[in-house]
Amino acid sequence: MLTVYGDSGSGNCLKVKFIADRFGIPLKWIEVGVVNGETRTPQFLAMNPAGQVPTVVFDDGRILAQSNAIMLHLAEGSDLIPGEAFDRALMFQWLFWEQYSHETAIAVRRYHKMFLKKSDAEIDPALMPKCERALDVMEGHLSNRSYFVAERLSLADIALVAYTRFAHEAGLDLVKWPQVRAWVIRIECDLGLKTALP
Amino acid sequence: MLTVYGDSGSGNCLKVKFIADRFGIPLKWIEVGVVNGETRTPQFLAMNPAGQVPTVVFDDGRILAQSNAIMLHLAEGSDLIPGEAFDRALMFQWLFWEQYSHETAIAVRRYHKMFLKKSDAEIDPALMPKCERALDVMEGHLSNRSYFVAERLSLADIALVAYTRFAHEAGLDLVKWPQVRAWVIRIECDLGLKTALP
Repeated sequence: MLTVYGDSGSGNCLKVKFIADRFGIPLKWIEVGVVNGETRTPQFLAMNPAGQVPTVVFDDGRILAQSNAIMLHLAEGSDLIPGEAFDRALMFQWLFWEQYSHETAIAVRRYHKMFLKKSDAEIDPALMPKCERALDVMEGHLSNRSYFVAERLSLADIALVAYTRFAHEAGLDLVKWPQVRAWVIRIECDLGLKTALP
Repeated sequence: MLTVYGDSGSGNCLKVKFIADRFGIPLKWIEVGVVNGETRTPQFLAMNPAGQVPTVVFDDGRILAQSNAIMLHLAEGSDLIPGEAFDRALMFQWLFWEQYSHETAIAVRRYHKMFLKKSDAEIDPALMPKCERALDVMEGHLSNRSYFVAERLSLADIALVAYTRFAHEAGLDLVKWPQVRAWVIRIECDLGLKTALP
C-alpha cells in the first residue's frame, strides 16, 4: 500500500495516481490542501521539510517527494522509461523542462486563477507569455511526433500532460496549439482518462 | 568530443563541465551569453527551441538540454548515481527539488543582482525568503549527513552545489547556514575545485 499525501487539484499529485492506477499499485490518498496551508503545518514539515505535495510514504516508512521522482521510482523497469540510453536522456530532459519551464508557468497561472481566485489583472503579467512559450515549444516538438520521446508513451508525456490538460483553467485555449491539443487527448486516452479539455 | 553551448557564469552550465572533467570527457565549450540574448537567436533556437543553456551536441549530432538530464546521461553507470533503487529515487527527488525550489530562488536572485546589475530594491522581494527557505531545507537535511544521499557523493550534491557555492552573489551569507557552508567546501574539494565562497 502506497500512502499519498496529495492535493487532488494538483496535476503534480495526480501524476502519482496515474502511475499507481496503471500498474495496479494499491494507493491510500490523504488529501492535503495547499491553499489552506496544510503543507506547512509542523506535522507535514516533519514528514517533508520542503512542504510540498505529492509526498508518498511506503509501507516500510520510507518517504519520497517530488512528483517526477516518485513516478520514476514507481515506473522503474517498466515500458514508461525508454530502454535506450539516449531516449532515456531525452525523457529526463523533458521531465526537467516540465518542472522548470512548464509547471512554473501553466500550473502557477492556473493556481492563481482557479485556487487563489485572482482576476487576470491581479496575476503576474509575465506568466501568460511564459505559458504561451511553453506551449509553443511543445507544439513545435509535436509537429512531427505523436509522443515526446521515441514515439511511444513515456513518463515525459505523463509529466507534461498533468497540467497541459488543465491549460484552459490557466486561461489558455489549446485550439491555438492543435498538435498539443490532439496529443493531450491521446495521452489521456492511453491513461484511460476522460479528457479534461473543454 | 562533447560540444557544450554554455554561459560560463551559469551554475547549470558548469555542472556539465564538472562531470566532463571528472570522467575525462573531452569538451569543446562554446560561450553563449544569456544576458545578451544569444540563447534566443534563430540559430540557437533551431538547436534548442527552449532557448536554454546548457545545450550539448554529441559527435553524432544528437542534441541534449537541461543540466541535470545531461549530467545523468554523462554519469550513467558511474558511482555518481546510487545503485540502490531507493537511494536513486532520493537522488532524483533532490535533482527535481534543485531545479524547482533552489535554482529558481538562488540562481534567479544572483542573476538579477550580478548579471542584470539590479539593486536589492529592484529585485522581487519574494526571492529572498525563498532563497532562505531553500537553504533552511538543506541545513536541516545536512544536520546529520555529509552528503545528500547515501553518505557519498552523487549527482544530487553536484546539482545543488552548482549555485549554492555562489549564494553570496545572490546576497546570502552562508555563515548563517554552517552545515551548508561546510558541505559546499566538501563537495568543491571532491570535485577538485577551489572554493568559490568568500
